Amino acid sequence: MTKLWTTKLSLPVLLFLSACAAPEPPATETAPPPEAAAPTAEWAIAIHGGAGVISRDVDEEWKQAHRDALSEALTLGKDMLDEGAEGLDVVEQVIRVLEDSPLFNAGKGSVFTHDGKNELDAAIMDGRDLNCGAISGVTRVKNPISLARLVMTESRHVFFVREGAERFAEEMGVEKVDPEYYFVQRRWDALQKALDKEKQEEAEKHGTVGCVVLDRAGNLAAGTSTGGMTNKRFGRVGDVPVIGAGTYANNATVAVSCTGWGEKFIRNNVAHDVSARIEYKGLGVRQAAEEVIHGKLDEGDGGLIAVGAGGEIAMVFNSSGMFRGAADSNGRFEVGIWQDDDE
Amino acid sequence: MTKLWTTKLSLPVLLFLSACAAPEPPATETAPPPEAAAPTAEWAIAIHGGAGVISRDVDEEWKQAHRDALSEALTLGKDMLDEGAEGLDVVEQVIRVLEDSPLFNAGKGSVFTHDGKNELDAAIMDGRDLNCGAISGVTRVKNPISLARLVMTESRHVFFVREGAERFAEEMGVEKVDPEYYFVQRRWDALQKALDKEKQEEAEKHGTVGCVVLDRAGNLAAGTSTGGMTNKRFGRVGDVPVIGAGTYANNATVAVSCTGWGEKFIRNNVAHDVSARIEYKGLGVRQAAEEVIHGKLDEGDGGLIAVGAGGEIAMVFNSSGMFRGAADSNGRFEVGIWQDDDE
Repeated sequence: MTKLWTTKLSLPVLLFLSACAAPEPPATETAPPPEAAAPTAEWAIAIHGGAGVISRDVDEEWKQAHRDALSEALTLGKDMLDEGAEGLDVVEQVIRVLEDSPLFNAGKGSVFTHDGKNELDAAIMDGRDLNCGAISGVTRVKNPISLARLVMTESRHVFFVREGAERFAEEMGVEKVDPEYYFVQRRWDALQKALDKEKQEEAEKHGTVGCVVLDRAGNLAAGTSTGGMTNKRFGRVGDVPVIGAGTYANNATVAVSCTGWGEKFIRNNVAHDVSARIEYKGLGVRQAAEEVIHGKLDEGDGGLIAVGAGGEIAMVFNSSGMFRGAADSNGRFEVGIWQDDDE
Repeated sequence: MTKLWTTKLSLPVLLFLSACAAPEPPATETAPPPEAAAPTAEWAIAIHGGAGVISRDVDEEWKQAHRDALSEALTLGKDMLDEGAEGLDVVEQVIRVLEDSPLFNAGKGSVFTHDGKNELDAAIMDGRDLNCGAISGVTRVKNPISLARLVMTESRHVFFVREGAERFAEEMGVEKVDPEYYFVQRRWDALQKALDKEKQEEAEKHGTVGCVVLDRAGNLAAGTSTGGMTNKRFGRVGDVPVIGAGTYANNATVAVSCTGWGEKFIRNNVAHDVSARIEYKGLGVRQAAEEVIHGKLDEGDGGLIAVGAGGEIAMVFNSSGMFRGAADSNGRFEVGIWQDDDE
């Protein structure tokens, strides 16, 4: 953080500092860049439950159910991190909670494909060594994020798809479910609407869950899990399992998890681009995230959560809403849905 | 080019230029960076046929066969570009030639999976708008690069896998082949060796074909096609169809196609990282490619071909060999296999 702050000071400000060196830190009116003002943290976590058109015209019970589910996952992650857990363990366990909820488009609550099936994708990445694991199109795995982690740790490869990924899951002995486990009436109705070519809520079309973490050991980790896109066909793969598009972690820079219109995130290599802007342009985490989400993507495409090596958290989206939460070692703990929610 | 050259001049050189402004351009002894010395071109093309351990201890006939196949593909691309063809058409047609050859690990010459099948991956990307198409795990498509292009142009998605991709191919009416079409004795023998856990030639394990192009209209395009990795399992996906890992094109920066150990290329987002170093660090194409191949990857991982917006060509690899070729509007035309071949 210090280095970034220093390199971003303009020459007049530097001269001012030299001339007026005093025991007091400069007043905030001297306008340091936003990333310099962010407190560093010993650990930090951000989660998301999908971005899209999220109508405010919903009943209080619906809102509270989503806030409660985000809080439950965030609390688990916060407690684990506070006790010194490894970032990858936190990412996996937090995402499992979100996958087990019927509210989000991942695991239990996954949307239906054109053929009326549920095909799940997930990815996880370790910022220490850029190791990663990804799966696409599994139909019987209860917690895809755990399978992605096994791809990372138990195979020489990083990306398995469909029947092959199922066979790998079988060999690993991960928990399986009957495909009916994923049946959620609301998701089924969304497919019927899509098949009828009625207008469909963006939030029902996309949606994803994700978690990014800085742990006490200074390691970054990221994970993302999704049921994909309602009415998808042809074994469509979105950005989630595409490392560098929807998921990325690198201790030197940032951990990122994205949510939104997957194709746009693939074309723009969103997650890796945030990292590259930090590494090569010297930007702070928030500025890098904002440049990509607001500068390269189009309004409504989605958003991302990011945690930097110093514990800076950014939750940036260009859609009307993004289910999200953030906590850190400085006592921050909050969940939000729309742009103007507390963050 | 001019901009890059200027920003890379050190202060003393700038002062020298100011003091000694003369009608003659500065002599090359003032050591401009290598990328500034590269001639710009109206069109440029580079191709590869895979990187790896390529023994020099092979007979002249084998070498000549590979050089001839590379020359044939390169000549087609050169002629098309000279006549003003669109970059994407060149990439597709050149890669089709390489796919139809039994010599390279793509199309006809694809390696065998653990189960004795041939599962093909390909990707293509349009530098004008970052549109792209990718497929993985098709078993009956004669020319996967053409299917990837149809994914890009005829669907709202960018990435289809396995049976889904086959169904899409069916709907598009692309040329199909019987799986036996891909039988090449040498590839079959390689699988048997791998199954016997004998040491296997790296060149037999990986290998890929690719093409990057700058066309007369100033557009960049990239494509890559592969049979994957001998003895692969679990529906393994490598870097080729992962946009930003094995394939990337952006008119603002560069077109890149990679070949080598796919997992390493995914973890390091190699193709997009070359672009990011050009865009954010202001590097030339060659320097950006060298930083990634020699600075981030390990010896033996593989290589890449790249063409920049000014027609600069880089063909960089850290393995003992890479089948490759390059041509441009300034009359360059060459093919090579090992590090010290003419380039």
